[in-house]
Amino acid sequence: MPVDERFYTFKGPQSLRTLLAVCGLDADVEADPEITSVASAAKARAGDICFFEGDPKRGMNVSAEATACFVQEQAADALPDGVVPVVVSHPRFAHKRAGEVLFELKPWSEAGDEPAIHPSARIAPTAVIGAGAAIGEDAQVAPGAVIGPGVQIGARTKIGPNAAIRCALIGNDVTILAGVSIGEAGFGVTAGPTGAEDVPQWGRVIVQDLVTIGANTCVDRGAFDDTIIGERTKIDNLVQIAHNVVIGRNVMMASFTGISGTSTIDDGVVMGGRVGIADHVHIGAGAQLAAASGIFRDIPAGEAWGGSPARPLRQYLREIAWIQKQVAPKKKPK
Amino acid sequence: MPVDERFYTFKGPQSLRTLLAVCGLDADVEADPEITSVASAAKARAGDICFFEGDPKRGMNVSAEATACFVQEQAADALPDGVVPVVVSHPRFAHKRAGEVLFELKPWSEAGDEPAIHPSARIAPTAVIGAGAAIGEDAQVAPGAVIGPGVQIGARTKIGPNAAIRCALIGNDVTILAGVSIGEAGFGVTAGPTGAEDVPQWGRVIVQDLVTIGANTCVDRGAFDDTIIGERTKIDNLVQIAHNVVIGRNVMMASFTGISGTSTIDDGVVMGGRVGIADHVHIGAGAQLAAASGIFRDIPAGEAWGGSPARPLRQYLREIAWIQKQVAPKKKPK
Amino acid sequence: MPVDERFYTFKGPQSLRTLLAVCGLDADVEADPEITSVASAAKARAGDICFFEGDPKRGMNVSAEATACFVQEQAADALPDGVVPVVVSHPRFAHKRAGEVLFELKPWSEAGDEPAIHPSARIAPTAVIGAGAAIGEDAQVAPGAVIGPGVQIGARTKIGPNAAIRCALIGNDVTILAGVSIGEAGFGVTAGPTGAEDVPQWGRVIVQDLVTIGANTCVDRGAFDDTIIGERTKIDNLVQIAHNVVIGRNVMMASFTGISGTSTIDDGVVMGGRVGIADHVHIGAGAQLAAASGIFRDIPAGEAWGGSPARPLRQYLREIAWIQKQVAPKKKPK
Repeated sequence: MPVDERFYTFKGPQSLRTLLAVCGLDADVEADPEITSVASAAKARAGDICFFEGDPKRGMNVSAEATACFVQEQAADALPDGVVPVVVSHPRFAHKRAGEVLFELKPWSEAGDEPAIHPSARIAPTAVIGAGAAIGEDAQVAPGAVIGPGVQIGARTKIGPNAAIRCALIGNDVTILAGVSIGEAGFGVTAGPTGAEDVPQWGRVIVQDLVTIGANTCVDRGAFDDTIIGERTKIDNLVQIAHNVVIGRNVMMASFTGISGTSTIDDGVVMGGRVGIADHVHIGAGAQLAAASGIFRDIPAGEAWGGSPARPLRQYLREIAWIQKQVAPKKKPK
Repeated sequence: MPVDERFYTFKGPQSLRTLLAVCGLDADVEADPEITSVASAAKARAGDICFFEGDPKRGMNVSAEATACFVQEQAADALPDGVVPVVVSHPRFAHKRAGEVLFELKPWSEAGDEPAIHPSARIAPTAVIGAGAAIGEDAQVAPGAVIGPGVQIGARTKIGPNAAIRCALIGNDVTILAGVSIGEAGFGVTAGPTGAEDVPQWGRVIVQDLVTIGANTCVDRGAFDDTIIGERTKIDNLVQIAHNVVIGRNVMMASFTGISGTSTIDDGVVMGGRVGIADHVHIGAGAQLAAASGIFRDIPAGEAWGGSPARPLRQYLREIAWIQKQVAPKKKPK
Repeated sequence: MPVDERFYTFKGPQSLRTLLAVCGLDADVEADPEITSVASAAKARAGDICFFEGDPKRGMNVSAEATACFVQEQAADALPDGVVPVVVSHPRFAHKRAGEVLFELKPWSEAGDEPAIHPSARIAPTAVIGAGAAIGEDAQVAPGAVIGPGVQIGARTKIGPNAAIRCALIGNDVTILAGVSIGEAGFGVTAGPTGAEDVPQWGRVIVQDLVTIGANTCVDRGAFDDTIIGERTKIDNLVQIAHNVVIGRNVMMASFTGISGTSTIDDGVVMGGRVGIADHVHIGAGAQLAAASGIFRDIPAGEAWGGSPARPLRQYLREIAWIQKQVAPKKKPK
């Protein structure tokens, strides 16, 4: 998915060798194609540079359309034909550097085009609407809310006080309560040559119509793709939704629920409070996750699971009852 | 409890038939009384319309004082004499619609009467004080704090930066730290004919004297009644208190504690971090809940409980020790 | 560690007897030395008054350099020679009162010296920079961010929208996302004669270079010493770090992690989501704490632990497998 220039400034293409030089990366490359963007390995297209870390024998999903790919030495030969290998010690870190040469996240108070605010929208005096943002008909933006550059807010949508929204497209009839954070970078860390490094996040957040998001909840933008919250999904206070999470329609998420990166939640899933879901997990439609369950695997549609690590709810309840029976308080002799 | 017109605009009474027509609800009713307010089934009085869902054979606590009640067909005959049944497919959704015809939550930046700010109170320049709000003697409101219309803030109370408070009465000598959300709608969802629907919340938050509320904590307003936090109760950062929760005096709640709707916490209860309490539960005075415990039942006064689901702390500790003994690492043979 | 006058106003020394009189404390003292500050028992120096609660037979770590110490009667004789005992019913509460006579936390919108803002720093119009604060070269402060009096922000550091920072020294190249709270008082409560009392917190927060702090995360200032976050440590959204916590370099902390007061996390520790760490615990360098683990004891360097209460990860996984085996669903007969 291309980097959205409403949210990121494109600083212009670079030849691969120039890009490496600007990044201070010392790598010999066999060709010098023009690099126009960064992408994930699986979705890279012509003009994109991507990265691959890990053991290529366990599988390597680098798109054959990618123009170039940062790899460690042992993986260079495994790249698809036509993808220029760029051998470096820290591929993900190199990719971070390349991305930062090509693009820049627009700062919260970027100067630029006047925002397009519908005359019927009510914007409180201490709210801030970024350059190039758009606010729809009858929308309300409460005091202290900060709408970043390029953000789109739909009709009748209400943004609560001191909410902060960037890199996001928000639908119609959405309700966002106080202190919500949408579109921040979230948590991507890689090892660089001198220690931990933040991985830049080049994606967006899409919030569909009729969604409600509770106070002080956080929704991070995608790393390359989008974080998506489907129609009529209802989210309680103090929930965490990480980058690239895709949530369907009519999903219910109670307080302190956390969804780790790139997990997918299908329509109608119901989560009790404090549910934790690991990364890259799929929750089938209509599944019910008991309060405080810890989900480290895919859950089939329609099933009820509980416990941590989660198992089918009936099994979990049997285990609890069994343990309590084994360790029952001793009864006094008659 | 009547809807408080400091926080909600009353749009005027409606005859029952007109109300149903405005809501687009197709229901035959046997009478056409004047409806002046919405209420919960148990507390409805003359003029109120309430709703009942569920199986009336399991008990129906609809007040005989209610003027009308939305019900599904099978429950209509079970209503107390004199309560006009309004048969609909989705009673709670119909009640939502009726409430929204009668009342409207005042928006954060409602125009109206000048707030009453004591001359000794210190209001930071970027703080926003809503119409009709009152700020007491020597109170402090930090930068970016947003005080909604009609909110009352007591003497010597300190409101932290970027806190947002609506539909609330805050006592004297209260300390509210940065980023706190008080009085947002919280999490009430019902099924409507086309999917999930937010249930409007018509109540308030009462914070008594000498309470402290930690940074980024959320306290939701009541659905019909009030969410109440008793005198000298001390709440840590990142705590969630849902609608209609009633907390006594001198209660201690550590970080990440969450109290679900309509639960009651008596005086002097102490909660370690990350305690989760289900809805409609009662915690007796002086009970001690261990860190990370999950409370799904009433807890007697003065007892110590732990684990999830919680059991008496001594029993919980015995279970842990027993499991560890059963699965002890094998010792090497001598 | 002396109370930092950039953040707290020193109201001048008091003779011990005057101090007690101003506090309304009725205690006979054998001498009347000048009291210039408050400190913890272990670190008190000349001029400081500290407090001790508990049973002196279990050990009493009151510094022999302290000038005076609030104690209950049974502990008075156990104080080091030269420390003036001040016998009171509630030593910690008395110490609170004494601290509040000597010092006052500067309010968020304290008047005072113009802040020192580097000409290259970008401060959004609705951001607030407190008196005497300093903002470094190329730093960015987003809309609605509140920087308290005396706070130091390093070069190239980015402060997100509606973040609130007080009593803190923030290094270079730090990234603080939306809604973060740094330097609030955190959670210290003691029993006073009429109920629960907040314990004032006289310390600071130190955030070293290249740290990242996720949205709506809270970092409380120290009680007497400092809360410290080491270089390149990366913290996710909605994390809680309590007073006096000391975190090393390159530590990773995922969402909903909570570190209780005075715990120490060494370099390179990695925590999954929702890890809870009790107070006064030490986590050795490079330890790995599984998601949702509850740590109530010291963890040796380099080890992987999980579960709650945590045990070595291998042991924890064996226990889970063993229980599941014991309570396996009955197989149908062939």
